[in-house]
Amino acid sequence: MAKQITPRGENYSQWYNDIIKKAGLADNSAVRGCMVIKPTGFAIWENMKAQLDKMFKETGHVNAYFPLFIPKSFLSKEAKHVDGFAKECAVVTHHRLMNDPNGDGVIVDPTAKLAEELIVRPTSETIIWNTYRDWIQSYRDLPLLINQWCNVVRWEMRTRPFLRTTEFLWQEGHTAHATQQEAIEEAQLIHEVYARFAEDYMAMPVIKGAKTENERFAGAVDTYTIEALMQDGKALQAGTSHFLGQNFAKAFDVTFSDNNNKMDHVWASSWGVSTRLVGGLIMTHSDDDGLVLPPKLAPTQVVIVPIPKPNPEIMEVAEKIAGQLKAAGIRVKIDTDEKKRPGFKFAQYEMEGVPIRLGIGMRDLANNQVEIARRDTKEKALKPVEGIDRYIADLLVEIQSNLFNKAVKYREDHTSETTDFEEFKHILENKGGFIKAHWDGTVETELKIKELTKASIRCIPLDEPETPGKCILTGNDSKQKVLFAKAY
Amino acid sequence: MAKQITPRGENYSQWYNDIIKKAGLADNSAVRGCMVIKPTGFAIWENMKAQLDKMFKETGHVNAYFPLFIPKSFLSKEAKHVDGFAKECAVVTHHRLMNDPNGDGVIVDPTAKLAEELIVRPTSETIIWNTYRDWIQSYRDLPLLINQWCNVVRWEMRTRPFLRTTEFLWQEGHTAHATQQEAIEEAQLIHEVYARFAEDYMAMPVIKGAKTENERFAGAVDTYTIEALMQDGKALQAGTSHFLGQNFAKAFDVTFSDNNNKMDHVWASSWGVSTRLVGGLIMTHSDDDGLVLPPKLAPTQVVIVPIPKPNPEIMEVAEKIAGQLKAAGIRVKIDTDEKKRPGFKFAQYEMEGVPIRLGIGMRDLANNQVEIARRDTKEKALKPVEGIDRYIADLLVEIQSNLFNKAVKYREDHTSETTDFEEFKHILENKGGFIKAHWDGTVETELKIKELTKASIRCIPLDEPETPGKCILTGNDSKQKVLFAKAY
Repeated sequence: MAKQITPRGENYSQWYNDIIKKAGLADNSAVRGCMVIKPTGFAIWENMKAQLDKMFKETGHVNAYFPLFIPKSFLSKEAKHVDGFAKECAVVTHHRLMNDPNGDGVIVDPTAKLAEELIVRPTSETIIWNTYRDWIQSYRDLPLLINQWCNVVRWEMRTRPFLRTTEFLWQEGHTAHATQQEAIEEAQLIHEVYARFAEDYMAMPVIKGAKTENERFAGAVDTYTIEALMQDGKALQAGTSHFLGQNFAKAFDVTFSDNNNKMDHVWASSWGVSTRLVGGLIMTHSDDDGLVLPPKLAPTQVVIVPIPKPNPEIMEVAEKIAGQLKAAGIRVKIDTDEKKRPGFKFAQYEMEGVPIRLGIGMRDLANNQVEIARRDTKEKALKPVEGIDRYIADLLVEIQSNLFNKAVKYREDHTSETTDFEEFKHILENKGGFIKAHWDGTVETELKIKELTKASIRCIPLDEPETPGKCILTGNDSKQKVLFAKAY
Repeated sequence: MAKQITPRGENYSQWYNDIIKKAGLADNSAVRGCMVIKPTGFAIWENMKAQLDKMFKETGHVNAYFPLFIPKSFLSKEAKHVDGFAKECAVVTHHRLMNDPNGDGVIVDPTAKLAEELIVRPTSETIIWNTYRDWIQSYRDLPLLINQWCNVVRWEMRTRPFLRTTEFLWQEGHTAHATQQEAIEEAQLIHEVYARFAEDYMAMPVIKGAKTENERFAGAVDTYTIEALMQDGKALQAGTSHFLGQNFAKAFDVTFSDNNNKMDHVWASSWGVSTRLVGGLIMTHSDDDGLVLPPKLAPTQVVIVPIPKPNPEIMEVAEKIAGQLKAAGIRVKIDTDEKKRPGFKFAQYEMEGVPIRLGIGMRDLANNQVEIARRDTKEKALKPVEGIDRYIADLLVEIQSNLFNKAVKYREDHTSETTDFEEFKHILENKGGFIKAHWDGTVETELKIKELTKASIRCIPLDEPETPGKCILTGNDSKQKVLFAKAY
């Protein structure tokens, strides 16, 4: 079964698609660019969602729900927003079907044309700020710290499962504040939450930074991003948090009276992560034998396989161990399927990325031991049944940290620094990864570099000290190094 | 504040709208028929969702996600489905906007017309069964027990918040089975789960029954329903579970080979509950002072109000009590807002339906006691601080059961039985509620009764014994009594 995956070295893109198919994460659908998220893939997203939701609530946010549809005219109100962004979208023009008088199918009822077309939300700043106008009168109504979990649609021409799909699932936070400082701090707080989630739960190291003007969200004053590095040396933008200034408040006329009864426009942030994270998770850890999942997000953390098949003695021990693990909050399942053989099951769980496999055979039982196999290192070991719950709990922590360290190591090995443009191109062509280099701060140079090399500025890293230098392309003065990479 | 609500006796419909507005549950949106679910309303839905999701998973179901869009042609494939149901819907015809050459707004790009229109899902049987065709080859692939949480759109002409909106949130389960019996049992299992959820969590008693052919889901062989009674004497269909036979499998050509290698079409069920349940919850328990919530679903179960405002001594006790309650798994908050006075806060929490309010003043502290106010009965009592956590835990159970019993009593008082059509009409006009009466089993009679009285057959109750009688309208033979009511 494992042999059915194309190795990364042979064709990375095919490897990715193979894993998604063989591990049962997603499927193409009958609708161009839209995927079906299968139960195993969706369970990963559910775990991500549960943890992020907890982190949002712990930082004072609440959930709400705003309409799927946005009146077309709303999209024109924030000029940069529509120019940059809101063009490729699904447009609803009619609200009724009728039986085709010439056949047995259905057709769109031409009399049911909408007076104003509705856009399926590509993001919800416009409809939400139109709503906030009614909710905000005074500083007492602020801050609003609202998030929503929903689906959005962007009509993408080239799609890839999880990484870029026409419809995707995400969360979008939209906050309103009385002061500029508070809105900036909110955007930064969530930036930090995203980074913590990526590193502590996804075991995916990220670089925190600010986007250049050219790469900013359309309508934002500042965009903060977390950037991860995939195993093919390409960067993945994994989450963004925007300080929106008063742009949307002005476009939708949202004002408030401060505690001196002075009127001002409201300050805003917005921020989002999406099912794209599932793609990032797959590409950060998986190998040529299939999916590898960090224990904290794995739908099943431990699978117990009776060998060669269940019998009363084996099941008694299996259930006892499963009970202990469940009591410790570990997600465990016992595979009691008698239609499949152990070898098939082993390959299947390896493919699905279950972090720990626990095998129990009759000979093991006689020796009061079980076989423990780690998915990350492929190591196997016989361990005493006594105390196995503590051993496994520790091992899950160890696997989580091993995956993170391995990913950090990969990123370190694939982060270069250069002052020479020829070397810059050489690195991109041969080794890939992040390149730190000086840039003169102009959009023109940024675009020229992208045209010549396909590398974009992923971010201006927050922890990068301002050290003067010369731009890698133009030789003009540069204030600090920025992070380049080819990106998804 | 409470006085701003229209009393139920004066205008029930306005009372409902007032509660939604004053308790901050939902708002109208800029899109006709679509509501904004505000944080307080959404928190109720989140609690419902968490509990239902748990019950689905405990009965072996998993979640997945299917596309928002359905190709128009899919809707024609199951003839009854499209006739009965899938006509009033949002139709996507284009995929791009462009700047209006004559102005500063945006228009639909006429060159970006879709080859086939896409329908925003009104329900997902068609796209899911089109997908299942690829997932099911053999009996080994069955059963599929899949649920999805999502938004759906039905272009309703008359909408009311939560009860009937153009877009709404729901879950839809779609299961596939090797045998008819198994699919029927699945539909019945979920019917039971829905009833248990309604009664044990919403404290909303329901009648379990089967729909008549006329009231069945379009495409179903059998529809099971739970029917609740609202305080205006109208019924609310609160959840339905359908046995679909092989209808969708045949329409989408989904076959499997059984364990004798014989091919057959797959058997199906589908089932759903929606944000309509929030409307049902409001209308079952609330009173003329605002929202009343059963503790199990209340976003905040206990609110602690320092009187007249927080000070260090009061806060010390408040935080100690809050800590004890949190440790017991109780959702508690301390209101430390100094900008509002206790009287305002009391009215606000009454309006929002917080089950227990705990007041702490300096005099209470001197006596080592606090004031406990129940939202359901409006009773207030002084209770010792010592052991207050156990007292509150017990009181929450008591409130939950009191609300259920009160609702059962209301339903009993508003369930009539008659053999006389004039009396039938009289009851409907004056008292409302459920009426048990004989019906001759024909669609014609059912429609005639509806035309004459606006009452429909809510269900054929499962626990109603078959007792022969004469139809209330036609006097023809009847096998058993059915349940009539005017309905939402």
